[in-house]
Amino acid sequence: MKATVFHGPRNVRVESVPDAAISLPTDALVRITAAAICGSDLHVYHARTQAVPGFVLGHEGVGIVEEVGRGVSTLKRGQRVVVAGSVACGNCFYCRQGQVSQCEASGGAVFGYGPNFAGKLGDIGGAQSEALCVPMADYTCYPLPDAIDDEAAVFLADMLPTGFFGALNGDIRPGNTVAVFGCGPVGLCAVMAAGLFGTAEVIAVDTIPYRLELARKLGATPVNAPDAMELILGRTGGRGADVVIEAVGHESALHAAMAAVRPGGTVSAVGVFSEPSFNFPIGLAFIRDLTFRVGLANLRSNIPQLARLVESGRLDPRPIISHRLALDNAPHGYRIFDARTDNALKVLLKP
Amino acid sequence: MKATVFHGPRNVRVESVPDAAISLPTDALVRITAAAICGSDLHVYHARTQAVPGFVLGHEGVGIVEEVGRGVSTLKRGQRVVVAGSVACGNCFYCRQGQVSQCEASGGAVFGYGPNFAGKLGDIGGAQSEALCVPMADYTCYPLPDAIDDEAAVFLADMLPTGFFGALNGDIRPGNTVAVFGCGPVGLCAVMAAGLFGTAEVIAVDTIPYRLELARKLGATPVNAPDAMELILGRTGGRGADVVIEAVGHESALHAAMAAVRPGGTVSAVGVFSEPSFNFPIGLAFIRDLTFRVGLANLRSNIPQLARLVESGRLDPRPIISHRLALDNAPHGYRIFDARTDNALKVLLKP
Amino acid sequence: MKATVFHGPRNVRVESVPDAAISLPTDALVRITAAAICGSDLHVYHARTQAVPGFVLGHEGVGIVEEVGRGVSTLKRGQRVVVAGSVACGNCFYCRQGQVSQCEASGGAVFGYGPNFAGKLGDIGGAQSEALCVPMADYTCYPLPDAIDDEAAVFLADMLPTGFFGALNGDIRPGNTVAVFGCGPVGLCAVMAAGLFGTAEVIAVDTIPYRLELARKLGATPVNAPDAMELILGRTGGRGADVVIEAVGHESALHAAMAAVRPGGTVSAVGVFSEPSFNFPIGLAFIRDLTFRVGLANLRSNIPQLARLVESGRLDPRPIISHRLALDNAPHGYRIFDARTDNALKVLLKP
Amino acid sequence: MKATVFHGPRNVRVESVPDAAISLPTDALVRITAAAICGSDLHVYHARTQAVPGFVLGHEGVGIVEEVGRGVSTLKRGQRVVVAGSVACGNCFYCRQGQVSQCEASGGAVFGYGPNFAGKLGDIGGAQSEALCVPMADYTCYPLPDAIDDEAAVFLADMLPTGFFGALNGDIRPGNTVAVFGCGPVGLCAVMAAGLFGTAEVIAVDTIPYRLELARKLGATPVNAPDAMELILGRTGGRGADVVIEAVGHESALHAAMAAVRPGGTVSAVGVFSEPSFNFPIGLAFIRDLTFRVGLANLRSNIPQLARLVESGRLDPRPIISHRLALDNAPHGYRIFDARTDNALKVLLKP
Repeated sequence: MKATVFHGPRNVRVESVPDAAISLPTDALVRITAAAICGSDLHVYHARTQAVPGFVLGHEGVGIVEEVGRGVSTLKRGQRVVVAGSVACGNCFYCRQGQVSQCEASGGAVFGYGPNFAGKLGDIGGAQSEALCVPMADYTCYPLPDAIDDEAAVFLADMLPTGFFGALNGDIRPGNTVAVFGCGPVGLCAVMAAGLFGTAEVIAVDTIPYRLELARKLGATPVNAPDAMELILGRTGGRGADVVIEAVGHESALHAAMAAVRPGGTVSAVGVFSEPSFNFPIGLAFIRDLTFRVGLANLRSNIPQLARLVESGRLDPRPIISHRLALDNAPHGYRIFDARTDNALKVLLKP
Repeated sequence: MKATVFHGPRNVRVESVPDAAISLPTDALVRITAAAICGSDLHVYHARTQAVPGFVLGHEGVGIVEEVGRGVSTLKRGQRVVVAGSVACGNCFYCRQGQVSQCEASGGAVFGYGPNFAGKLGDIGGAQSEALCVPMADYTCYPLPDAIDDEAAVFLADMLPTGFFGALNGDIRPGNTVAVFGCGPVGLCAVMAAGLFGTAEVIAVDTIPYRLELARKLGATPVNAPDAMELILGRTGGRGADVVIEAVGHESALHAAMAAVRPGGTVSAVGVFSEPSFNFPIGLAFIRDLTFRVGLANLRSNIPQLARLVESGRLDPRPIISHRLALDNAPHGYRIFDARTDNALKVLLKP
Repeated sequence: MKATVFHGPRNVRVESVPDAAISLPTDALVRITAAAICGSDLHVYHARTQAVPGFVLGHEGVGIVEEVGRGVSTLKRGQRVVVAGSVACGNCFYCRQGQVSQCEASGGAVFGYGPNFAGKLGDIGGAQSEALCVPMADYTCYPLPDAIDDEAAVFLADMLPTGFFGALNGDIRPGNTVAVFGCGPVGLCAVMAAGLFGTAEVIAVDTIPYRLELARKLGATPVNAPDAMELILGRTGGRGADVVIEAVGHESALHAAMAAVRPGGTVSAVGVFSEPSFNFPIGLAFIRDLTFRVGLANLRSNIPQLARLVESGRLDPRPIISHRLALDNAPHGYRIFDARTDNALKVLLKP
Repeated sequence: MKATVFHGPRNVRVESVPDAAISLPTDALVRITAAAICGSDLHVYHARTQAVPGFVLGHEGVGIVEEVGRGVSTLKRGQRVVVAGSVACGNCFYCRQGQVSQCEASGGAVFGYGPNFAGKLGDIGGAQSEALCVPMADYTCYPLPDAIDDEAAVFLADMLPTGFFGALNGDIRPGNTVAVFGCGPVGLCAVMAAGLFGTAEVIAVDTIPYRLELARKLGATPVNAPDAMELILGRTGGRGADVVIEAVGHESALHAAMAAVRPGGTVSAVGVFSEPSFNFPIGLAFIRDLTFRVGLANLRSNIPQLARLVESGRLDPRPIISHRLALDNAPHGYRIFDARTDNALKVLLKP
């Protein structure tokens, strides 16, 4: 089958690989009908992870169940599903609390991120391919209603749950003002998710005009990063935002977020950080009573309610799609998304 | 001054009464610029309360502070305020928890509802008049920003906090389906408030076409009451609504609400009941794990966040206004609102 | 095998019945080592349910796994488990939210309660026997650490989760005063569970001296029912209890609970009601802003944290055991528990 | 009057200063009957703050109201009160949410901490003296019931609310295992407070035997710091503590806390940090989904429920008192508490 394979820094190729196949009784084989490139794939693309050449990329995929292991009890051949970006058993200590990113059975394995992120599962394939073997398929696959098309469904694999996780972690209350730093696909999903908690205003911060324009269309007040602090203070009587969602993944953005949040507020980080540590302003945080939350988003546990919101039309992530490419053109998709050229945001790949 | 005075069943008159005046150091005198007729005023209008002829009606008012007692520290002459529909001290055991309807200092006094609802304050005037003496004015009055005009502000006195209270009591989660029984002004405010909690769908139930049509414009799925059960089950996979907000005030609506809510769900009642008790289906509730919440809404404590939402444009209650009348025409306003003729919903009175 | 069989009003017999056996792949066979008689068994005993003679009683059991179906993946032969009193799949819409009493797969089937409470499972056996076939065994059985002995473990099947459910539903905050109406085994477990939420005082109400004395030993302030109202008001500055847990199951107790709770408080009912409805004082509830919650407790979902509390010694339910009988003496156990003679509280049965 | 005055590093003296006196209408003069030395006073004592010689120390005091300004409405001469350690108006945006440490009217002024912590109030006196002028006295003073003696009451000024704040910020759930790093007075109060949230086990970490021994008496499992990690992992199935409360105030303790908390858990810091920043392990925190909360505790807003718990006997902080000295001996008190000699913990000062 064809798949998008990592070969080194800024070097991915679509090439022929051995067909994906079931190996455990709890696996399912899913024929991919739509996949997408995620901002966190760029960490791999830049070889900033300890990635090893040769593995298949991608953890955002939608498709049709083609085969199920004999231990799979709820899925059927022919069923249309979204595959959660990380594998979860649904039954362990963490999964029962909804903290599926910490699943003890899978070790929190992420598809297509290389052996280092494959948790206890050894290597697992990626979704930017023609087919994917899904471990712990009864829970990791989520059946889709017809009302959600592939293009909306692909956001349920990672983007929407991650944006929602950022908003949920912020403990947003009705009437709050929320600032979202970073208007890539995750930041834009956080803009949408924040609105589910009764925000009075969502302020979207970035430096790239087409991203800010899209934030505006999604209901946010856009602001160019250098002007963000002044705008945020101006809109909040000088107090700062009740909640700041950091969707950039840099120390400078974290510091800006902590300066922009009001006393007693929360900074919720969903950006992926490549550095192991940063300089936390604890004197400021102590005087101002801050909460800081950061984590790998819980994907599968948040899909049902998000699917219901997409189904009813209350959430529509499709405006975030900038490109729809054939799987063969994945390398081009990586290039433009990485370079932020061609107004690239969410790049879909269709096998 | 002129005021709307109760004289018996279906008999209110606008007539001259002694000028409202400050009597305690913590009082403020507010010159009313906009007032409104509330569904609960109809209970008085029908003489279903133990109301005594002669008192001035109304608990929804906006105006300008004309005079403050020497114990008032935060309000100034000339300031524009909304007067919360019930008096609250802001400092007692209940007020500190936000349960201002149970204020121990005021006894939860409601303006313009007659001596029986005046709590510990003896009789207090009503807002459907040219001026109002506001007890415990530092907290009971809420200063308005310019961005909220009188017509929107009058909803902050009671309607929006009551709808919000109903939604808050429902413990709505993102992705939920909420049914609102009753599309009078409170029900319509509950429709708007439910949307602050990330509902996937709000189903609005009534029998009157113009009310259902307005619910639709406010974002709800309207349904004629006899068809409600079928629609609610159809939209929720046969489970029932996650939350039902009862905004009618009749036993039959309560029973319908309990039948329409899913197991584990909440029925939140904001209707005003004239009967002292009703037949509660405890067998059903036990088997289905139900929560039932009912109460006099907390008004003042919920005004700040709602004002922020109105100011930012996220909430706009003004479409609920059906009539704008001069104060002299208050009797006509009562008649049409009571009879539900002339597409009457919220009737504003301008002194 | 021997089992406790229902034969009509106040007529149970221990007699030989066909051996329990696995029928579905997800079943497990558990050899019972300790069972107990529950207050709700008395509803069957009195033939107040639509119970049919011939079924085996009991939904509180602990034992050793003897055999598992081929679809059971986590349990092993020889493992010691407590069997949750009601069957739950762990994977459906309700189970994922912890509302296991509403499990869609099992229909909320309760062991040993007769066909009417066996949900979608048809008839299922009872635990007051030598062995029990447990459906959906992977989730319905909970493995026990050695530190929890059989006598403590049997409370995890129903009593402790039910008392905990009552306390959880009360939304108790640190510093609260909680009144528990009814000091049978469930009420006493609610006394213990309320203490987990930081209560300043738990007031235990009953009329039977030995039950009140045990409540006192468990840390509560005991009071004879006729004196309860005065004591509760006296301890709360005249306001009433913040939360009342009703563990009696009669309309009169519900009315007393609603009179004894403070404005803005919660009445949480865990008693089993045999009447289908009761007269709810909505006028009072409206003026006082009350929350009323009632339901079949969620058993399995609350076992892990309760097991941890029993294991660490923070909760010790064993003082509630009044009698330890051989299984053959089950009829005597029913008689004394029903008659409240011989200081009967929790009656254990050992096969 | 006599008072404890700061004169430089490790140099405090009890000397005569001008009598405390009311200056604003909302002030009250409190005759101090018991005060105490706080761990955060040591930051001043070590001249690690920008403290200026000459000011009176102390923010933990209990006493009798001697005089009230004409704007004070609820306090009376002769009334016994605890003075919250930081001034709060009770009415601003933050106070209404219970975030009194961020009070906009007082600027979060702390008594006896020098001009830099006096917020908007300019300099305010300290409680380690014969009398104290209390600004915004209606809210900052909390009237005491007779059942709470001075020795228990002095803990309500700061210690108990700070320990409670640490526990509250941890979002502890019933059945959790909580580790408290640091067994000074605040850490020991956090041990007691954690128990209000239904902990299965509280593990108390320190290096000083008499402090660990007291932690044990208060119900915790004591452990010497070098052995803490192994014990915590051993008690939690290798996962780590659900919640860690950091009550030391050093970077090394923060790092230990983050290593000892389980994935998805919370590190709640109540230690006072003298460094402006620390090296935050964001890679670890991201992979493990951590929440980090730090802040100046909200004192006044948490006093009512804590007072109720002390009054009922559920909380008794008096075992933490190690020394009861005459005010004149304050310098000795500072010396032994700073040196941790003489088994010093909480040092009370009686004017």
